[in-house]
Amino acid sequence: MYKLKQLENGVCSANGFYADGISAGLKSENAKDMAFIYSESLCEIASLFTTNKMTAAPIRHFRKKGDFQTNFILINAKNANAMTGKAGVRDIEEVLSTCENSIINPVMSSTGVIGVRLPKEKIMNGMKLFSLKKKNPHAAAQAIMTTDSFSKECAYQVTLEDGSSFSIGAMAKGAGMINPAMATMLCFITTDAKVSKSEMQDILDEVTQTTFNAASVDGDTSTNDTVLLLSNASSGVYNKEAFKEALHKIMLFLATEMVRDGEGATKLVTYKVTGAKNDKEAEKVAKALSDSLLVKTALYGEDPNWGRIASTVGASGVEADEETLSISFDTLCVYDKGTLLFDEAMEEKASLVMKKDRFTIVCDLGISHGSFTSYGCDLGYEYVKINADYRT
Amino acid sequence: MYKLKQLENGVCSANGFYADGISAGLKSENAKDMAFIYSESLCEIASLFTTNKMTAAPIRHFRKKGDFQTNFILINAKNANAMTGKAGVRDIEEVLSTCENSIINPVMSSTGVIGVRLPKEKIMNGMKLFSLKKKNPHAAAQAIMTTDSFSKECAYQVTLEDGSSFSIGAMAKGAGMINPAMATMLCFITTDAKVSKSEMQDILDEVTQTTFNAASVDGDTSTNDTVLLLSNASSGVYNKEAFKEALHKIMLFLATEMVRDGEGATKLVTYKVTGAKNDKEAEKVAKALSDSLLVKTALYGEDPNWGRIASTVGASGVEADEETLSISFDTLCVYDKGTLLFDEAMEEKASLVMKKDRFTIVCDLGISHGSFTSYGCDLGYEYVKINADYRT
Repeated sequence: MYKLKQLENGVCSANGFYADGISAGLKSENAKDMAFIYSESLCEIASLFTTNKMTAAPIRHFRKKGDFQTNFILINAKNANAMTGKAGVRDIEEVLSTCENSIINPVMSSTGVIGVRLPKEKIMNGMKLFSLKKKNPHAAAQAIMTTDSFSKECAYQVTLEDGSSFSIGAMAKGAGMINPAMATMLCFITTDAKVSKSEMQDILDEVTQTTFNAASVDGDTSTNDTVLLLSNASSGVYNKEAFKEALHKIMLFLATEMVRDGEGATKLVTYKVTGAKNDKEAEKVAKALSDSLLVKTALYGEDPNWGRIASTVGASGVEADEETLSISFDTLCVYDKGTLLFDEAMEEKASLVMKKDRFTIVCDLGISHGSFTSYGCDLGYEYVKINADYRT
Repeated sequence: MYKLKQLENGVCSANGFYADGISAGLKSENAKDMAFIYSESLCEIASLFTTNKMTAAPIRHFRKKGDFQTNFILINAKNANAMTGKAGVRDIEEVLSTCENSIINPVMSSTGVIGVRLPKEKIMNGMKLFSLKKKNPHAAAQAIMTTDSFSKECAYQVTLEDGSSFSIGAMAKGAGMINPAMATMLCFITTDAKVSKSEMQDILDEVTQTTFNAASVDGDTSTNDTVLLLSNASSGVYNKEAFKEALHKIMLFLATEMVRDGEGATKLVTYKVTGAKNDKEAEKVAKALSDSLLVKTALYGEDPNWGRIASTVGASGVEADEETLSISFDTLCVYDKGTLLFDEAMEEKASLVMKKDRFTIVCDLGISHGSFTSYGCDLGYEYVKINADYRT
């Protein structure tokens, strides 16, 4: 048995971790745009990166280093350092070569516009403003935002039966170019749990499938997606089950916060698919629903258009049949195995569900026992506005 | 050798075909909402239907009849007769049982809202307004529109070297729920060519791959997608090569007209993908580009954001590498195999291309010789507006 307790200090919640965010002039109006995470002792790293073939330079730089430990992550917003070729990696090496002596094997992570070389001078000048022993996790979380409208942090302390404890803390950014494919967006997680590198990687892989990989804003997978999980083991404490549960809570919270903050989104919708031929087919349906433009615009219009949901299930390529399918909005069943239940009275009730800012759409395929849950948002005018002139 | 000449009479261009559109009160304000196509003699039929598993009742009714010839298609807008189960098929049988005696094996095709029973009374009253020997192809094309902002017709006459000739005419509807998957949307094609049923089906299958199946408005595949090609053979003339070329011209025109009329679309963009590992991978990239929300909103913003194009290529799952990729807007190369060409001067030139209402985005993957061309549109405020309250 163990207890979980939520903490308030983001990536500084675990023992021995420091972080801050500063303004290096990359964003306008002195907004914070550079952050670091620093650990007093060297950390084991578990990592997950985008499956996008146009892998951004920071990811290629990380992979080039092979197997290593680190105590420092440098993060910048506003420039993704993607599609910048070998020069992009050299820019990172040059920037990181100016780190002070206590920093070992530093890594870099970037987010922002694709296809523009890194503003090295500004970044190196910004690094001079860093003071490693700062504990400003909220400033760090703000600095890594791009089109995000709020920062995203989560942390838990795990206390075991014998009174010993460890903590896990995290921050993430992401509001657009969000689609399940390994890792999505940037997320940095720190822990003082005494967990081995390989077990930490296994758990990260597993938890990602039902959290970040179950979230979608727009079906576009970024060039820079990164999840880094750092452990400095400084608590000396570990329990696998508890570690996994706490990590799952943190990652699911951050994944759904990202969707809730989806560009222009007004609703967070959970798609619970059950009764599929197998879990893989349920996942296909759940993701087709969270990605369908017609479903997303109906959500925005608060229109209980269950026909579009049925059509999307049918188009997803899985085994499905209108005679076994049922669809509910929260607990209100609107279509039941071939029976049209929808009349004016029900439309009114369904509209009330649609007006909520969080609700669940349940699709039971009635074929077998496969299930999957995904998280999506609506698509409205703001999404178009944000993305029609993101660069300008 | 043969000659092609464009004709103006849509589905009445081929000898012996009649059509008309009338108002049966399904749409508001007496707009035309029901159409028919009638042939003096029985026709062989080639057909293609949606791959959506929630197949609409008209398609299940058609398939239930097995192998047959017909001389009559009834089409209604405003109600898709989808997700209506066995009752939906019985409704069609009841409606078609009121056809006059000269009509043999009539078929029905529907488009509109999903999940509402067919308004049989209105439709049967509407059928009384039909007069079979009418040649009003434009009225028919207008009657089958839903969110379309213009009707879509195309016809060609083929004249062979010996002076003999045959014709092919077509009408189509479609502006939303448009995504390549067998057939997409409704399309009716009539011909007097003396072509066998099996050859007609083979040619229809082949031509669909590079026309309707290469078009996308929103990545959503409808429950009602239907292409019917009817031949009454009344010309007694046929030439395979000419038939295929004319059919390809007609279907490509209608497919691109649908995309141009994509809900809220202001641009028709051709995605020409070359240099892929094989044609299948090129198709994957071309369709990923025409479906990407981030590419579509950049198009709407007339923002030459080639980074999103590169990211979409990378995310599409095919073999790709930033060191071999190049991207052009029409003939303007903006990214060349790892070289960032994009500066202010080029941005200005690229913006001029983006302002055109038709242009081509060329992605050469530089891997091998696979190629595919797809057709897409931008996504703006109007798309959201149309789809946030389609039913209301």
